[in-house]
Amino acid sequence: MRRSRAFIPTTKEAPSDATLPSHQFLVRGGFINQQGAGLYNFMPLGKIVLEKIRNIVKEELDNAGCNEVQLSFVTPISLWERSGRADTMGKEMLRISDRHQNDFVLSPTNEEAMVELVKNRVTSYKDLPINLYQINTKFRDEARPRYGLLRGREFLMKDGYSFHASQEDMIREFNLMEVTYKKIFTRLGLDFRVVEADSGAIGGTGSKEFHVLADSGEDTIVVCKSCDYGANIETIFTNEEEIDALNEKSYEELQTQELSDKCVCGGELNFKKGIEVGHIFQLGDKYSSALEANFSDENGKPKPFEMATFGIGVSRLVAAVIEQNHDENGCIWTKETAPYIVNIMISNIKDEAQNTLGEELYLKLLGENVEVMLDDRKERFGFKMKDAELIGFPYTVIIGKELDNGHVQVYNRKTQEKTSINTGDIYKHIMGLI
Amino acid sequence: MRRSRAFIPTTKEAPSDATLPSHQFLVRGGFINQQGAGLYNFMPLGKIVLEKIRNIVKEELDNAGCNEVQLSFVTPISLWERSGRADTMGKEMLRISDRHQNDFVLSPTNEEAMVELVKNRVTSYKDLPINLYQINTKFRDEARPRYGLLRGREFLMKDGYSFHASQEDMIREFNLMEVTYKKIFTRLGLDFRVVEADSGAIGGTGSKEFHVLADSGEDTIVVCKSCDYGANIETIFTNEEEIDALNEKSYEELQTQELSDKCVCGGELNFKKGIEVGHIFQLGDKYSSALEANFSDENGKPKPFEMATFGIGVSRLVAAVIEQNHDENGCIWTKETAPYIVNIMISNIKDEAQNTLGEELYLKLLGENVEVMLDDRKERFGFKMKDAELIGFPYTVIIGKELDNGHVQVYNRKTQEKTSINTGDIYKHIMGLI
Repeated sequence: MRRSRAFIPTTKEAPSDATLPSHQFLVRGGFINQQGAGLYNFMPLGKIVLEKIRNIVKEELDNAGCNEVQLSFVTPISLWERSGRADTMGKEMLRISDRHQNDFVLSPTNEEAMVELVKNRVTSYKDLPINLYQINTKFRDEARPRYGLLRGREFLMKDGYSFHASQEDMIREFNLMEVTYKKIFTRLGLDFRVVEADSGAIGGTGSKEFHVLADSGEDTIVVCKSCDYGANIETIFTNEEEIDALNEKSYEELQTQELSDKCVCGGELNFKKGIEVGHIFQLGDKYSSALEANFSDENGKPKPFEMATFGIGVSRLVAAVIEQNHDENGCIWTKETAPYIVNIMISNIKDEAQNTLGEELYLKLLGENVEVMLDDRKERFGFKMKDAELIGFPYTVIIGKELDNGHVQVYNRKTQEKTSINTGDIYKHIMGLI
Repeated sequence: MRRSRAFIPTTKEAPSDATLPSHQFLVRGGFINQQGAGLYNFMPLGKIVLEKIRNIVKEELDNAGCNEVQLSFVTPISLWERSGRADTMGKEMLRISDRHQNDFVLSPTNEEAMVELVKNRVTSYKDLPINLYQINTKFRDEARPRYGLLRGREFLMKDGYSFHASQEDMIREFNLMEVTYKKIFTRLGLDFRVVEADSGAIGGTGSKEFHVLADSGEDTIVVCKSCDYGANIETIFTNEEEIDALNEKSYEELQTQELSDKCVCGGELNFKKGIEVGHIFQLGDKYSSALEANFSDENGKPKPFEMATFGIGVSRLVAAVIEQNHDENGCIWTKETAPYIVNIMISNIKDEAQNTLGEELYLKLLGENVEVMLDDRKERFGFKMKDAELIGFPYTVIIGKELDNGHVQVYNRKTQEKTSINTGDIYKHIMGLI
């Protein structure tokens, strides 16, 4: 993409309510903008990042044998009345009426709709297990939407639902999805922890959360220094006031907090702050029983499906990457999430030699399907450099005065190091980096 | 995909309200199911087709220099009040209230939101033109939703908006989009016509519609036998009763209808029935003036953007392909839209030789990234064959009794021809077909 033809409206000003780095930098970098309280538009750069994350989620789920579907976002309230959740979901589930005064909801999650989809279509134990997922819009009418993409009202979520003939098989799939989620978050380049969690409004018998570690995380988790154990504090403290008090502490304050010994291997436990980006639940037959969704077992007897459910906050991940990867100058995208991995900056667009080399390198990299931006704008070098840091391209090739000596510089956004490279070697050098 | 592990719930029964082939066969073939009036779920096969169409639309638009974005689906009503359309859009635009009694709409189209996105972010003629699009959920609260995906309430639409410094440049882009749309519908394998159209509620000075020819089409168009001219009858008849009367006639009845000479080259005009799958509009400054969205021209003077807007009914195209490509037994997908291009049918799953060849061929084609289904179910041959016809795989390799003589059959869904092929040549034969 040529920067002169792209719609990337970067700005010096952050919104007045933006307290978190991801909110500030995603708006300032031209990735997103606010349409209303908790409602965000993805501009071209933000859309590219969102689709990259969506594709990685899809690829790993498909590899694990899941089938993608797409449910209607507007769903009849009758579904929720039958499961009993019309009464328990509270005000976060937004009710709407159509022109004929029939009542619907904007889907906040889809257990009921997915059970209805499978009911009477999968009738025998021979057709089980089955794991269906979608990556689709959700709406939760938060009382106080905030933190940009981290706590919006409309968001993109992957929700998956599996159906089984036995609890053993459901637990096998639950474990497979834990492994699959780890692959997804590892590919995204994130430092994360899997922790024991509370099942909340979804219900069920066991659940695990996936947290991206970040000082700004809303959740407080404890992790063991010696083993894999981790837990959301909601599962180990029973006093709600105590939980709230801990959640209000900053990451630094938590380091001085004492934690009495509750754990698995006897190793030392530490408090961390985390952003919840995934949650997997063992549901059992809660929804299948309520909605009378049965299959015939080996003996021809009707039994309700054993179920599990699996969520990933896809649009939330765009912000989580930045909460974990930024500095005071802007975003630092990981390789798998960067909107463009290489930015070629022509320092002085009036300099013919700089222009020629920039164009040549741009077309050569494009030809190799490298995701490359050419900053061909008539702007000062300092302005363009600040812009590149704000957006957070992993590598910027600076074509400037050193070209007189046959050199260009490669700037690494993460380490902030500049490396001088012979113009003859630049293509090879870039291909080696990415 | 192994059919024994797939969720493809085919059925003999069509919904009682399904009068059109696409509605009947997409439900019976396990592509879609109804969640509520005008609300549809895409099951795995339907989701694959939808994504194929989405990807072709995206590829051609990106090649034409458009930038993809994603706007919030729930939008504040204030946007629509400022443009004046809060009053004129009628009941099809569904109004909703959040928990704080603030008013929003479920986006039926996005001219206002897109103008707001560009306003104050593109400020100079130097940054024009710009063409932004999204492929996102829309909602129109139809009084009488019907015809399955053809007239639903929630649907997937591509809506694009371009911004220009002059009318000439806007018309250049309008023409480029006409060419781009033709490429898209040609790649999808559709027989379509571009016709002069009425601008309706969107407004503006000129528009063209793209119609897939189908006897069941809701629109009546006239096309010239000798030249490229075509028009929606709404543009050439002024009497609304006359238009309604023509629209109610079947395709056969229209062939006996006389049409007085109104046309361009003097050639003979014919009535046709069409399904509208695309619409492009020259908007001028209708929205940019109303929303005070200006840029600075060469002389530094503020001017409202010249705009055009471009729509494609992405989920409607899934149905339009089938309206144009079906027979009494089911769907006949085109190569670019087929959920799987090859279906390998093991006639008798208990026959070891049939099984071995089926598995071998399946793995070999998978290795070449061929979209292949292996029908490995323990069902009768006749049942599996009817199922393959209903779903509409372009090619089915039948591994049956002929295997004793070293042959398999390749069934072409469109021509219904069976060709006997030596087992040693089957891989090469399939690769030649696709």
